Amino acid sequence: MKPTDMPKEGAEMTEETEHMIEKNCAKEPEEENVASVGDAKEMRVVVLTGFGGLNKLRVTKKPMPEPLEGEVKIRVKACGLNFVDLMVRQGNIDNPPKTPLVPGFECSGIVEAMGDNTTGFEIGDRVIAFVNYNAWAEVVCTPLDLVFKIPDDMSFTEAAAFSMNFVTAYMMLFEVANLRDGMSVLVHSAGGGVGQAVAQLCSTVPNVTVFGTASPFKHEAIKDSLTHLFDRNIDYVPEVKKISPEGVDIVLDCLCGENTGKGLGLLKPLGTYILYGSSSMVTGETKSFFSFAKSWWQVEKVNPIKLYEENKVMAGFSLLNLLFKQGGGGQVRNAVLKLFSLYNEKKIKPRVDSLWALEEVKEAMQRIHDRGNIGKLILDVEKSPTPLMANDSTETSEAGEDEEEHEADNDNKERMPFIQ
Amino acid sequence: MKPTDMPKEGAEMTEETEHMIEKNCAKEPEEENVASVGDAKEMRVVVLTGFGGLNKLRVTKKPMPEPLEGEVKIRVKACGLNFVDLMVRQGNIDNPPKTPLVPGFECSGIVEAMGDNTTGFEIGDRVIAFVNYNAWAEVVCTPLDLVFKIPDDMSFTEAAAFSMNFVTAYMMLFEVANLRDGMSVLVHSAGGGVGQAVAQLCSTVPNVTVFGTASPFKHEAIKDSLTHLFDRNIDYVPEVKKISPEGVDIVLDCLCGENTGKGLGLLKPLGTYILYGSSSMVTGETKSFFSFAKSWWQVEKVNPIKLYEENKVMAGFSLLNLLFKQGGGGQVRNAVLKLFSLYNEKKIKPRVDSLWALEEVKEAMQRIHDRGNIGKLILDVEKSPTPLMANDSTETSEAGEDEEEHEADNDNKERMPFIQ
Repeated sequence: MKPTDMPKEGAEMTEETEHMIEKNCAKEPEEENVASVGDAKEMRVVVLTGFGGLNKLRVTKKPMPEPLEGEVKIRVKACGLNFVDLMVRQGNIDNPPKTPLVPGFECSGIVEAMGDNTTGFEIGDRVIAFVNYNAWAEVVCTPLDLVFKIPDDMSFTEAAAFSMNFVTAYMMLFEVANLRDGMSVLVHSAGGGVGQAVAQLCSTVPNVTVFGTASPFKHEAIKDSLTHLFDRNIDYVPEVKKISPEGVDIVLDCLCGENTGKGLGLLKPLGTYILYGSSSMVTGETKSFFSFAKSWWQVEKVNPIKLYEENKVMAGFSLLNLLFKQGGGGQVRNAVLKLFSLYNEKKIKPRVDSLWALEEVKEAMQRIHDRGNIGKLILDVEKSPTPLMANDSTETSEAGEDEEEHEADNDNKERMPFIQ
Repeated sequence: MKPTDMPKEGAEMTEETEHMIEKNCAKEPEEENVASVGDAKEMRVVVLTGFGGLNKLRVTKKPMPEPLEGEVKIRVKACGLNFVDLMVRQGNIDNPPKTPLVPGFECSGIVEAMGDNTTGFEIGDRVIAFVNYNAWAEVVCTPLDLVFKIPDDMSFTEAAAFSMNFVTAYMMLFEVANLRDGMSVLVHSAGGGVGQAVAQLCSTVPNVTVFGTASPFKHEAIKDSLTHLFDRNIDYVPEVKKISPEGVDIVLDCLCGENTGKGLGLLKPLGTYILYGSSSMVTGETKSFFSFAKSWWQVEKVNPIKLYEENKVMAGFSLLNLLFKQGGGGQVRNAVLKLFSLYNEKKIKPRVDSLWALEEVKEAMQRIHDRGNIGKLILDVEKSPTPLMANDSTETSEAGEDEEEHEADNDNKERMPFIQ
């Protein structure tokens, strides 16, 4: 990108930030500062060039953002990859923003600067942050109330795996549903990031029974974290009823569609059903309007008088909407602080599936689409891509790619930098 | 009623109970026992002869029930009268039972006997009890797990005012909605039994704001129990938004109909709407099928995806269904014990509107229909009816009454034994 492409406003803010760094850090020789300006103004990012398949993703350079008043600038170390990022890629969300855009809603890193009149962090603080897009980058700026200092012994990888999944699990279990001693919980995608967070948080409360559904190949790896585990391809309703004829206290549903009716039907009196995702709407690699519309209408609307007669609670939880549309930063802070206490007491620990370079985002996304992960996928900003295999077609070319959507390319899985 | 009318089973059980009393109490001369059998076999009850208007209610005598295994027999001192009793009278409930029936779901009194192999109470214990109909009688039998010993300094009147209203308010606020420091609550019919219980329970949590709606003539009497009070005849939505533009955390709705949509719309993110009644369905003195059906369909069905996008919780709470259809005795016991603690700490105290003799049940019901009450209406089993006024037409004649439904007869209000 040529310097003339850079927005004027960005350039102005870069100067401000340099000024702040100068004020706050040990002084460096002036000539070094000047020399580094050229590099500092650009950063690597993942860009989504348009809604669609994996081919819409590439790594490119963009002007580095500078913090506005009330914002924190963070040098990113690791980013979380979530199922919702697939839905964004497909444009399969309410009011999608314009493309091109930089995806990503959460990251960990180091505070590098603060906006004018903004306090609360020191340069060098290790933090996690929620970002309204733009997280998959070397540098992000985000409002102060969406940034949280992490415990000293939490790695950046763990931290990036922590925020969305554990906050979602915590708020659903303890703020929406009021989990208590002796209750039972059903969670789908038990091997995923939220599923594993739910399992760990349930273990912090005495005598909680956790029912989970997951692909059979994950069962061995996650069976110790749940009380009862079912194959996600079978009907879980009769299986749960066999074990607990009276039903369960809490159903956490990220699938939507027909699972809403099933979930409500499985509730005990005073039980709570929470819809927190709609991953059954993501069927192919690109958005299918028909499958989207079908899923929406498949969801049975519920008459509140039915809930009254059956003593049931039906809820929805969207952390992103809470954070970015509904001003829920304060409510989330409360959850984050409680979660850090649990982490410090060694009661919870994020489970990381695998680390990926920014340049490997397509393979990472394919893995989450195929539900191959156990725990969280992380984009490690400082990681170099694993060398390509012979038949791998991934590239970060700036050229337009007009290929049609294709089914999951299993060859891509050759490049899978698992961690255990 | 002639002795031959009495079911054989009733007669047999009377003997068993006498045997139990004999075992458990100080022995009395045998001839006195024999002499009292004639009286003991019958009791005064309120009977609903068919669904409809006030003319379907009368006081009559019935064979006294005897406790089955697992049941407790209670000599009733006072009974609670609730809005749901009006709905029962009109047959305006799901799966109404057959008439004639004895209405009433709660009472206070003294344990008089226990069924075979039933322990947990002593003869003479002062208790409250939930009863699946049949509470408006001199004696009731009900399962052990629906009976609770009351604190020593709680009067029978207070006790009868306590159970349904405070348990409903407590379970909604603390088990369904998770009321915490700093939250806000909107409650309709703020002057009624549940409304006043909600206000008192909210005052046990720091910094809770309570918005209430009530008829203007009640405002002076209840204004100290709420933070903000609105006329029930105006639209409360703009009034609440003027004070709290972001909405409220908890909406408790006993009105149903269009208030469901309004209530959901007023919720803050993570807020909870609870439907716990449908009193707007009771419009005239007798059931109007048209108004009933209209109310049901007026209730907008809710798509769970909408709750997901808005981070909202929609719940229903029916204490009667929980107790009598869903085996929720254990959950209710937990709430009752916590409420008794609050009572002993003098943090809550049931507010009694007025006491009525069984023979005055029509006037009492008219008063609740007209929303004239502030707090709870109690049927005091030992009370004699207040002498009739000249133009009062109420009677307890056993003769058929074929009068058509009529609008609230304000003259009836002449006989109103208020207590302050």
